[in-house]
Amino acid sequence: MATSSVQVLGAWASPYSIRVKTALNLKSVDYEFIEEKFYLGSKSEQLLKANPVHKRTPVLIHDQKPVCESLIILQYIDEAWSDNGPSILPSDAYDRATARFWAAYIDEKWFPAFKELEKASGDEARAAIIGEIYEGTALLEAAFVECSKGKAYFGGDSLGYIDVVLGSYLGWIKLTESAAGLKFFDETKTPGLARWAESFSTDAAAKDVLPDAHKLKEFYMMIKATKA
Amino acid sequence: MATSSVQVLGAWASPYSIRVKTALNLKSVDYEFIEEKFYLGSKSEQLLKANPVHKRTPVLIHDQKPVCESLIILQYIDEAWSDNGPSILPSDAYDRATARFWAAYIDEKWFPAFKELEKASGDEARAAIIGEIYEGTALLEAAFVECSKGKAYFGGDSLGYIDVVLGSYLGWIKLTESAAGLKFFDETKTPGLARWAESFSTDAAAKDVLPDAHKLKEFYMMIKATKA
Repeated sequence: MATSSVQVLGAWASPYSIRVKTALNLKSVDYEFIEEKFYLGSKSEQLLKANPVHKRTPVLIHDQKPVCESLIILQYIDEAWSDNGPSILPSDAYDRATARFWAAYIDEKWFPAFKELEKASGDEARAAIIGEIYEGTALLEAAFVECSKGKAYFGGDSLGYIDVVLGSYLGWIKLTESAAGLKFFDETKTPGLARWAESFSTDAAAKDVLPDAHKLKEFYMMIKATKA
Repeated sequence: MATSSVQVLGAWASPYSIRVKTALNLKSVDYEFIEEKFYLGSKSEQLLKANPVHKRTPVLIHDQKPVCESLIILQYIDEAWSDNGPSILPSDAYDRATARFWAAYIDEKWFPAFKELEKASGDEARAAIIGEIYEGTALLEAAFVECSKGKAYFGGDSLGYIDVVLGSYLGWIKLTESAAGLKFFDETKTPGLARWAESFSTDAAAKDVLPDAHKLKEFYMMIKATKA
């Protein structure tokens, strides 16, 4: 596969771009990454043309055809390169529904609470959101036990759909943990997820894709300063 | 297939339940529909047990195992009964991504504007939202032309994923059209969608599932009165 046939329009610090890169690595697909510098206040012509509806990254461009929305891209990668490497979605229909359910839960309920935490003011409001995150993390721990069946990943021996989705947030989760003095993936309360996070961070498909903690913190401070 | 093996916990007027019924009809799967009367202010034990995370309908229960979230249920139905009737998702990976893209667009952007319209006060705010809905409808018309390739449905000769998703809203769309004196699926501006709506409403898989306009209006007035 020539490098030029697969491009990703994305942002290095974005979980949604990180998951697309991870999935392409899993499938051993070479790609060209084109950094979209949204924080400079404008969007590239290429992005506007590739994703005229939402005008946002990531976009996967495969043989000139754009695929938008990260969860849709992950499923596309799994299907378009079905013969390469491990399957991202499980093969059983019920397990696939379960994987889709938790991926949507992580994107629509669990991680949004991290963003709310950042905006919350007042100890009471913060405590309520932190409580919500812990409750959600307990659900994810139970999901991990159910899906992984004693293996390292939600997907079993190799990264699957839930792994790629949850793992894409690891950099931002760690940043929140460090800023708030908390630990969400805790060895005692959620031992499965604590081990999982270790395995994910060192997995061949993910390790070079996850953002460096120091660089991510600097980037976050820069964005925050721009907004202030 | 014994009737007892497939149950749907749902609400007759809910687009999200309607789409699940339509998909089961498409696949010729017999099912038992269990009406969840959420407007009575409580949720059934069965629903809370089947969907403890979101506590909402629809839930498909197949051989005692629950599947939640309507778009996930549609994909599950397509995969679990892959040998029955036509495929709901297209077979080509890129076409599948396109179908998923428009289904998500309809659920996350286009139809939510109808809900905003209901809540909006002031002519200016209403005009802005109506403008948004028309813009979105023009995008959907273009998507229809692209996906249907001259056939009756987004899915071609038979209902596909986008059809089932968009069609599930038809009752509520017509109610809005009639209340606001507007026409969103217009013979002149969006002739493809106007014809599509006619075909959908009379399709064997959908016609007995779509709510009666008069009954839906009465139900809407009842809910509105309860909230007031």
